[in-house]
Amino acid sequence: MTKDKKNKPSKELPLGFVDRQEKELLVRDFIISNIKEIMIKYGFQYLETPSFEYSDSIGKFLPDKDRPDEGVFSFQDENKWLSLRYDLTAPLARYVAKNYLEIPKPFKRYQLGTVWRNEKPGPGRFREFLQFDADYVGTKSLQADAELCVMISEILEKCGLTQEEYIVKISSRKITEELFKKINLNNKEQKLTALRALDKIDRLGWSGVKQLLGEGRKDKSGDFTKGANLSSLNIETLEKELNKKTPDTEDLLEIFNIFKNYEFTNFEFDPSIIRGLEYYTGPIFEVNLKFDIKNNKGKVVQFGSIGGGGRYDNLVNNFGNYDAPATGISIGLDRLVYALIQKKDFKIKQSKPVVICVLNKDLMKKYINLQKTLRSTGISAEIYPGESKLKKQMEYANKTKSPAVILYGEDEIKSGKPIIRNLSTGAEKSITINELVNEIKKII
Amino acid sequence: MTKDKKNKPSKELPLGFVDRQEKELLVRDFIISNIKEIMIKYGFQYLETPSFEYSDSIGKFLPDKDRPDEGVFSFQDENKWLSLRYDLTAPLARYVAKNYLEIPKPFKRYQLGTVWRNEKPGPGRFREFLQFDADYVGTKSLQADAELCVMISEILEKCGLTQEEYIVKISSRKITEELFKKINLNNKEQKLTALRALDKIDRLGWSGVKQLLGEGRKDKSGDFTKGANLSSLNIETLEKELNKKTPDTEDLLEIFNIFKNYEFTNFEFDPSIIRGLEYYTGPIFEVNLKFDIKNNKGKVVQFGSIGGGGRYDNLVNNFGNYDAPATGISIGLDRLVYALIQKKDFKIKQSKPVVICVLNKDLMKKYINLQKTLRSTGISAEIYPGESKLKKQMEYANKTKSPAVILYGEDEIKSGKPIIRNLSTGAEKSITINELVNEIKKII
Repeated sequence: MTKDKKNKPSKELPLGFVDRQEKELLVRDFIISNIKEIMIKYGFQYLETPSFEYSDSIGKFLPDKDRPDEGVFSFQDENKWLSLRYDLTAPLARYVAKNYLEIPKPFKRYQLGTVWRNEKPGPGRFREFLQFDADYVGTKSLQADAELCVMISEILEKCGLTQEEYIVKISSRKITEELFKKINLNNKEQKLTALRALDKIDRLGWSGVKQLLGEGRKDKSGDFTKGANLSSLNIETLEKELNKKTPDTEDLLEIFNIFKNYEFTNFEFDPSIIRGLEYYTGPIFEVNLKFDIKNNKGKVVQFGSIGGGGRYDNLVNNFGNYDAPATGISIGLDRLVYALIQKKDFKIKQSKPVVICVLNKDLMKKYINLQKTLRSTGISAEIYPGESKLKKQMEYANKTKSPAVILYGEDEIKSGKPIIRNLSTGAEKSITINELVNEIKKII
Repeated sequence: MTKDKKNKPSKELPLGFVDRQEKELLVRDFIISNIKEIMIKYGFQYLETPSFEYSDSIGKFLPDKDRPDEGVFSFQDENKWLSLRYDLTAPLARYVAKNYLEIPKPFKRYQLGTVWRNEKPGPGRFREFLQFDADYVGTKSLQADAELCVMISEILEKCGLTQEEYIVKISSRKITEELFKKINLNNKEQKLTALRALDKIDRLGWSGVKQLLGEGRKDKSGDFTKGANLSSLNIETLEKELNKKTPDTEDLLEIFNIFKNYEFTNFEFDPSIIRGLEYYTGPIFEVNLKFDIKNNKGKVVQFGSIGGGGRYDNLVNNFGNYDAPATGISIGLDRLVYALIQKKDFKIKQSKPVVICVLNKDLMKKYINLQKTLRSTGISAEIYPGESKLKKQMEYANKTKSPAVILYGEDEIKSGKPIIRNLSTGAEKSITINELVNEIKKII
């Protein structure tokens, strides 16, 4: 941690972390306010748990087994280990156990928060994500699972997507559970390895998944991932069964029936949906955007998942004996924002301030008064925040996308008529301060 | 990090971290939207840097020297160290250095984000904070420093505080710098120790600060903090000079003059303001709330600081040779929210959903249709999300502070008249679905 005295500190960010600019943040704020509005309408209540939890409280349910601490950022603190949360679900389970007597039953909560995954760094792999979750805790009713799917579709449509542009893909952990029984796969670790292999179908295709179901796979960097050691025959059975077109587990049949009551049709059964997290026990779903975008290699691909979730009936029970079967959904905000910016032409209205140029520092009181007058009418105005020549002040106004600059020197002050220069047209006008307010309101 | 198989995981949070409930979060959202609105009006632009930075990029400017890693949460990642940011200023300096050619000059940015301090755990000492910052980078003009003080006062008044309820206290690092020269204190480490001692005046009073300026101090837990080893004579000089009532440094005289132009009067000169962070070079200020609250020991105290900031002209230069003198303000959101909840009777309007009770699971389609009708008129409505008896459903509605429940059984469906029970009055009405919409709108 010591800074090398000879070298300057790094201006770069660690791999997997990024700076986010205004346009993205404004679109994100717009999406967040849409999500909040709908989750509130559906009766979820607001909660925030902290970034850190005791490591044992949130367990280790992550798919990324290759990393030394299995994908989690952890610290030793006094005698115990703390971890940064890797999702918002495990902390919710801890919260429910801690506050079981006080919470409504069932408990419906929404939460917005950053989660961290200590992934193997690589291009396009982030280690910090913003998630927006809604969960039901304390209900076995599949009405809850169904309503999450209906809700996410309402959210996406509120954000401007059409039914053709997204789909909710749904499956159930019961399917893989029954399949594993069928091929006599009982070992817990081996089952997990198999699940994690199946979860990689999007990224690796069936050929890569087959290697991970078998002896293992070496990736491009040369790293070897141990496989689940299933026989070719068993792998073949899995592949065949996971290509089925209609579900035969009871939970999915019931959910599809509830969808009918909701007149919700924008879903499809897809047994190749696995979801990486270990704690799921029933229906699982994934929300996919169907439109094409260019990936970082310039290749056109379907956008894919922006979130998902599922039922986790046993998670709270890790803390003791609670009646807390649960289901939830998680929206990956960064990906959703990115998708919507690619797809939609967002016009987030935010007027940039007009810039009052400082022509003479001794006139500062006049500039402050003018700024005050403009701001009092709701106009965003700023005095050039430095001590530079007019040329630099104009550069500043252009760079900040200011709609106009105001030139207010001794002559203009004498005549009571500042000059306004419209920065899109270049036109200048010499007008009274009253007229100025109207003129600015016209051009912002 | 291994979980003891015999023990259940902890339901508790690590010391210094808390869960936040709906009421606090809604007030926080309200305050955040006020702050954003005003910062945008003042011409700041939105930026977000990530939680993690290379440790050497954000340096070590924290006052908490007692902790092994000096108050920062750090990880080793491959060959380099990463740290969770301890403020939003150091990452901004890194961002400016990285993007120096692209940004407007001066650069005005606002940012909302969590910061972490690995403080010695103790009652009321948090290790995770939400901060809202605004900074000017690339200007020496003290107009910028002054405008930050004017802006924070506008923010507080927009949040409902009166001029009597807050004060901006202002001083300058130039004062301590000159004092240290006067007493021939030149050693950098010793100067920092002295600054950090002076910064503790609020918490320890002059008697504790004197110990820290001298040989050192043992706290209640028995931990010993080494002092700055100044002579009693020099300590006396410091105490005397830091009790002065009028400033004599040029920067403060100029700022007070700018305040006059702004007709801003709600400030006071207070040379005991030090600010813990090492990077300040000029004017420093602190925003204090003046009303009384009860502290965690039940004692009535003045609320105190909810934020502050100052000028840091050399921070960006750690990365190379940049023309980037800067000044900024940081609002401690958690403390501001807490203060406003204590002081103001916030009525954040948010209607809780009416609960449609499930009297008969076979009627689910009817419930879904009713819910749809209500939601389509903008009413927040939920079907009871479980499979329990009516008594439990009523408990749920009361616990979630629902305004009303709707009872819609076979008889009501036949007559086309659901029963609505107002949960504040207990009154029941049997009315048509059209009337129901109006009735609910009346009581929410």
